[in-house]
Amino acid sequence: LLSRRGEASGMALAQEIFSRWDLMNEDERIAFLATMVDRFPPDQAVLEPAITAAQAPPTPANLSALHLASEAKRQEIIRRLNHAPDGTRRLVRMRETLLAARKTNPALDVLDSDFFHLFASWFNRGFLHLKRIDWTIPANILEKIIRYEAVHEINDWDELRRRIEPPDRRLFAFFHPQMPDEPLIFVEVALTDRVPAHILPMLAADRPIIGPTDAKVAVFYSISNCQNGLAGISFGNFLIKQVVEDLRSELLGLRTFVTLSPIPGFAGWLSKQRGLEDSTTALSRDERQLLSLLDEQGWALDGKVAARLTPVLEALAARYLVTAKDKRGRPLDPVARFHLGNGARLEQLNMLGDPTPKGLAQSHGMMVNYLYDIGQIEKNHEAYAESGRIAASGAVRKKVRPV
Amino acid sequence: LLSRRGEASGMALAQEIFSRWDLMNEDERIAFLATMVDRFPPDQAVLEPAITAAQAPPTPANLSALHLASEAKRQEIIRRLNHAPDGTRRLVRMRETLLAARKTNPALDVLDSDFFHLFASWFNRGFLHLKRIDWTIPANILEKIIRYEAVHEINDWDELRRRIEPPDRRLFAFFHPQMPDEPLIFVEVALTDRVPAHILPMLAADRPIIGPTDAKVAVFYSISNCQNGLAGISFGNFLIKQVVEDLRSELLGLRTFVTLSPIPGFAGWLSKQRGLEDSTTALSRDERQLLSLLDEQGWALDGKVAARLTPVLEALAARYLVTAKDKRGRPLDPVARFHLGNGARLEQLNMLGDPTPKGLAQSHGMMVNYLYDIGQIEKNHEAYAESGRIAASGAVRKKVRPV
Amino acid sequence: LLSRRGEASGMALAQEIFSRWDLMNEDERIAFLATMVDRFPPDQAVLEPAITAAQAPPTPANLSALHLASEAKRQEIIRRLNHAPDGTRRLVRMRETLLAARKTNPALDVLDSDFFHLFASWFNRGFLHLKRIDWTIPANILEKIIRYEAVHEINDWDELRRRIEPPDRRLFAFFHPQMPDEPLIFVEVALTDRVPAHILPMLAADRPIIGPTDAKVAVFYSISNCQNGLAGISFGNFLIKQVVEDLRSELLGLRTFVTLSPIPGFAGWLSKQRGLEDSTTALSRDERQLLSLLDEQGWALDGKVAARLTPVLEALAARYLVTAKDKRGRPLDPVARFHLGNGARLEQLNMLGDPTPKGLAQSHGMMVNYLYDIGQIEKNHEAYAESGRIAASGAVRKKVRPV
Amino acid sequence: LLSRRGEASGMALAQEIFSRWDLMNEDERIAFLATMVDRFPPDQAVLEPAITAAQAPPTPANLSALHLASEAKRQEIIRRLNHAPDGTRRLVRMRETLLAARKTNPALDVLDSDFFHLFASWFNRGFLHLKRIDWTIPANILEKIIRYEAVHEINDWDELRRRIEPPDRRLFAFFHPQMPDEPLIFVEVALTDRVPAHILPMLAADRPIIGPTDAKVAVFYSISNCQNGLAGISFGNFLIKQVVEDLRSELLGLRTFVTLSPIPGFAGWLSKQRGLEDSTTALSRDERQLLSLLDEQGWALDGKVAARLTPVLEALAARYLVTAKDKRGRPLDPVARFHLGNGARLEQLNMLGDPTPKGLAQSHGMMVNYLYDIGQIEKNHEAYAESGRIAASGAVRKKVRPV
Repeated sequence: LLSRRGEASGMALAQEIFSRWDLMNEDERIAFLATMVDRFPPDQAVLEPAITAAQAPPTPANLSALHLASEAKRQEIIRRLNHAPDGTRRLVRMRETLLAARKTNPALDVLDSDFFHLFASWFNRGFLHLKRIDWTIPANILEKIIRYEAVHEINDWDELRRRIEPPDRRLFAFFHPQMPDEPLIFVEVALTDRVPAHILPMLAADRPIIGPTDAKVAVFYSISNCQNGLAGISFGNFLIKQVVEDLRSELLGLRTFVTLSPIPGFAGWLSKQRGLEDSTTALSRDERQLLSLLDEQGWALDGKVAARLTPVLEALAARYLVTAKDKRGRPLDPVARFHLGNGARLEQLNMLGDPTPKGLAQSHGMMVNYLYDIGQIEKNHEAYAESGRIAASGAVRKKVRPV
Repeated sequence: LLSRRGEASGMALAQEIFSRWDLMNEDERIAFLATMVDRFPPDQAVLEPAITAAQAPPTPANLSALHLASEAKRQEIIRRLNHAPDGTRRLVRMRETLLAARKTNPALDVLDSDFFHLFASWFNRGFLHLKRIDWTIPANILEKIIRYEAVHEINDWDELRRRIEPPDRRLFAFFHPQMPDEPLIFVEVALTDRVPAHILPMLAADRPIIGPTDAKVAVFYSISNCQNGLAGISFGNFLIKQVVEDLRSELLGLRTFVTLSPIPGFAGWLSKQRGLEDSTTALSRDERQLLSLLDEQGWALDGKVAARLTPVLEALAARYLVTAKDKRGRPLDPVARFHLGNGARLEQLNMLGDPTPKGLAQSHGMMVNYLYDIGQIEKNHEAYAESGRIAASGAVRKKVRPV
Repeated sequence: LLSRRGEASGMALAQEIFSRWDLMNEDERIAFLATMVDRFPPDQAVLEPAITAAQAPPTPANLSALHLASEAKRQEIIRRLNHAPDGTRRLVRMRETLLAARKTNPALDVLDSDFFHLFASWFNRGFLHLKRIDWTIPANILEKIIRYEAVHEINDWDELRRRIEPPDRRLFAFFHPQMPDEPLIFVEVALTDRVPAHILPMLAADRPIIGPTDAKVAVFYSISNCQNGLAGISFGNFLIKQVVEDLRSELLGLRTFVTLSPIPGFAGWLSKQRGLEDSTTALSRDERQLLSLLDEQGWALDGKVAARLTPVLEALAARYLVTAKDKRGRPLDPVARFHLGNGARLEQLNMLGDPTPKGLAQSHGMMVNYLYDIGQIEKNHEAYAESGRIAASGAVRKKVRPV
Repeated sequence: LLSRRGEASGMALAQEIFSRWDLMNEDERIAFLATMVDRFPPDQAVLEPAITAAQAPPTPANLSALHLASEAKRQEIIRRLNHAPDGTRRLVRMRETLLAARKTNPALDVLDSDFFHLFASWFNRGFLHLKRIDWTIPANILEKIIRYEAVHEINDWDELRRRIEPPDRRLFAFFHPQMPDEPLIFVEVALTDRVPAHILPMLAADRPIIGPTDAKVAVFYSISNCQNGLAGISFGNFLIKQVVEDLRSELLGLRTFVTLSPIPGFAGWLSKQRGLEDSTTALSRDERQLLSLLDEQGWALDGKVAARLTPVLEALAARYLVTAKDKRGRPLDPVARFHLGNGARLEQLNMLGDPTPKGLAQSHGMMVNYLYDIGQIEKNHEAYAESGRIAASGAVRKKVRPV
């Protein structure tokens, strides 16, 4: 592909390589990827002098030359594979294989870095189109919405229809022009008259439906990335902001933009805390004691038990979201990390907001609203990015303290 | 744009920067571009250790890290400017200014290198769409065809129509999805029953028109790049090959794919040769003598004079195309460089193929056909690229010798 | 609507009338329709002299005048209602109500005649678009295919997908430009390598799928009218012929165009024949005796019984299709009437072609292939239309005789 | 076409008839049309009893039967011709020929009545689409705008562009779905800040251009019917009302909808009046005397003369528009008839509003504004339609009196 022949007949050759790839088994594919790493490094004959030149003294020109010289020929291979019909989609699929193979083949990391670099450039937000998904959308796209929904499962076409057809529902997705029937990411929105605390009534088939012009609140209740092969390329931030902007100009009555979000890491964190020594855990002794109620089967169905657990679970969820950090000092919870990083504010904790088995398993049923306050997003984002400060409402902030 | 604020409100900010750019005068724009060079170099704190690490020993991982570390922050700026509405087109326009400014500001070269790098990635052939331009195309696109035609000028809408509407004419252009009404490059094709030697009869309004299914030859008689801001990004090779492929499958009677091309550098080269000493010129004494006929006003209208000049001018044109080289050893003539580099063959010289003032001025009216022979393209390209060998027909090859 | 105000503000007024209609109950709607009959007859003051004039002597001019004068103002009302947004679809819905109401209100017949007259003009085949329905079609259209399928029920989206996505399946529908998401009629096609005798293997999910270019036979196995409000406007003839033409030019390997059709009136006719006196029935005594096997529960599952019944049921089905006529002398079976009227030929009888409860109930499981032989359609149609002669293969013709 | 063969192979047959038509000369075409009249009258065998039945007594049912029976078979022929590819457009072209031939062949009148009847049904306003024509519209449609403009000629593509591209200009056309690149009628609109009195400054290339949101007045300055073959089918009324409605909801600042119209019959009427005896002319003696100034070459360029003529010409134009009637009692001026019939009001006379040779020739340069006042349209239309009353402003009304 990089040879003379590649220049003359690139498209046909790229097509041929993909056809072979389609026929390879797992091992052959990994071997193919490893070959790309081995055979297409940067050109050492150019790179060495570029390094030397860049050292004394470094000028813009020789640094620029160094950047070019240090680019592995792998990137040019990937660029040429993109010439094949449907090349972009096939490269995204190829990276899916690569990402899986990396786990056991760290030598492939550099190849993934090349893929990532090119995809970040090709899937630049400037090239993406926002599209509303409703019941007039082709079936081959809708079936992908069903398949890719990762937060609140869509079981069949009737349920899909309930998410996109009623006047109080919206679903928006980003598309890339080269993959017109493949959503990249989508967000589901409910239009309501108040900030919701519970997911099930909001999804119920027989809920009261309000007219869009009566809506005061737009609730982002599900965000799903669709392409594993685009892992690490961040679309969610742009998607939410674009949808907020579009909804604001379409529906003048909307005042509040808020999520109703899971807390996927809460139960795991809590379980770990309960297993720690007193001196290192984030829990008070009283809290620990109360939490033993969680161990009883069916506690969530027993109103009295749930009521006793409410203050302690809300306090602990607040503490988890505000204070638990990963190694890089960011919020431990991935959903919190995403929304707080976007400039949203932790607004409200919702005891038993999601009483489904999945909800109970991941967060003892707790849900949370993140608020997108147009006037505050930039400030929140800045504080978060510079000093790690987490924006939280007074109500949440109070709950951080031990019960 | 790179700051925290840039992350939170990138689209609005990019839009704002372009709005300011639109209001700047020439000097302010150059100052703006210079600021990009100065303020957004690679991060020295990351780059230095990366250079050190890449030296002993260079592993794929640390070379990959070096590549990332040596990328100037300018590239990220350009990527974020692309988020603005119509950002891609505006960046292409910005590079037009940059290319002009570079000539007197070599410090801007590195910035152009960044633009070039990103544009080469964004305008990857895999993202381009080939579109036939005919009389059903929107006027705002057609007017650009009129404006961008660089070989045989289109004077008005009637002339445009004659190039795109008759059944024996085709015009194809590449488009990028983000600039749907801006052709990037286009080629004009005439369907004929033989390889043409003269341009004027082929463009004449009252020529006989043949049905496409009767056509045996497809003549590429004009190729124009449309976007100065994309200078250096090569589309022509892909365009011609795609058009050959599409026409072949549409019109089964087509046997021959050939250009009718100008020789833009011939007259200049010849004039220089005539001014040189005998010992260094490429001309024989007899040739020199005969060429003095060119100095008479209106020689091209005098059949006898033209007949005397024919052998010598054809010999010299052949010699020019086959033997005259630039500093890098490539054909001196830019059109020859393009087609020969694509794998075409120098096929036939056409004395007074273009007797217009422009044709006489640039090549004493001489034109040339380059042949795209599907079965030979790859081989020709390889020979050209590896050893600089130029593919030429026997007839042309014979003419290289002195008269 | 016919008043001055109607002329000035017709669109708004038509819209208003439909809005009121939407709020009316059944009785009010019938009253509304009755009012149209009563209040908007032809203009008697114009009609009377026109009748007089047309009598002695009738000239083209006075007959033309008579035609105009005898048009009821109802038609102009309907034309103006069509000005409303979505007016055409709403008029089609209105005629649904009218058709139901006619049964008990013969006074409404003349109004239906007006609707029919206008719809026949508006839904002229020249205005209809043929569209292939596949898996890339919007869901709101696909759900109508599920709903309107009247021959072999589609139970869910997976089954729909099996009818439109595999390479050996086609579904084509006619659309009117004013009702772009409402199919008018559709036909389902299976591409096979031989003329099929049984419906279930052909619809099976796990059947072998052949590539379209290997197909030799196109089987029309289901044709469904979609709009009750367009009853009497005949699209099927045009649809089949267009699909035959399109498939022939797309798939050059196709040799045979054939249906696999139900015989909906067979069981009813047979039951009636069995109840008649010997002297008037179409059955022989032997046949009657054998037919008593049909009265045993589950006979179709018993191979031996089915084998004994085969000759007699095939003979009787042939006799029914070829000789049983309605009052107007046309084939009694509605499906036979449709295909034979189109110029198709009765080709082959298929014992237990449809062993489902529905198939057994309507025709004791018998199915039939009608053959669309391009070279014979016109001749068949002419013989049918002029002398009622039914085109049938030799094999079928032989079976008409008593066993 | 009406035969058995027509039913079986109608589309191909219709196509064949059109192909023959294309090859016929004028005389052959007229003969063809005459044949349609002669050979396809109503079916006398059905019609005669229908007439008898309809006489004593006439019931809705037998009147409906009479209407059907009196329809000439010609209409069915036309309906079947519409099945041909591009049939509708070809029928419209056929009627162009018919309309020309009628003038010398009154026997063709009944055929035109059939065409008219069907076209009125097929081109029902409910089937028409309003489309804004701007610079992004395909060239093959734009060239038709140039060709069909009948009021203020468009000389070339630059002038066309000035009518459709600036932000203060609009052009809207009606299209039929079966003729998607053929405008049926179009209106040109200028957005201004006041009611204009002169056409040339409004069309000037260097006029000041106002932003659409600053516009207070929408001026309909040119309305052109495009299809001669649709003569008599009225679209203008619907077009203007739809455009008023659309502009009102797009541009909230618009307060006034007004035309700037020619008075095509004024000069002819005036010339006739001047030739009449004193006793029968509509002119006073003083007026006659003053009007002799018109006979001087170049009077319009002489400010003093024009000033002297202003009161008398305005008075006479007002008198012409308000009082001159055709045989059916309608306004004599066709443009006045159109706008007043739509419910507009005669608003303002504009001396030398159109000083071009065409303007001077048809109305001595006089122009007029008709006002479309949303709140009054219905009332005006009703008064006009019922009692022939013409809506006119006080200013115009005053001018009707002799100077």
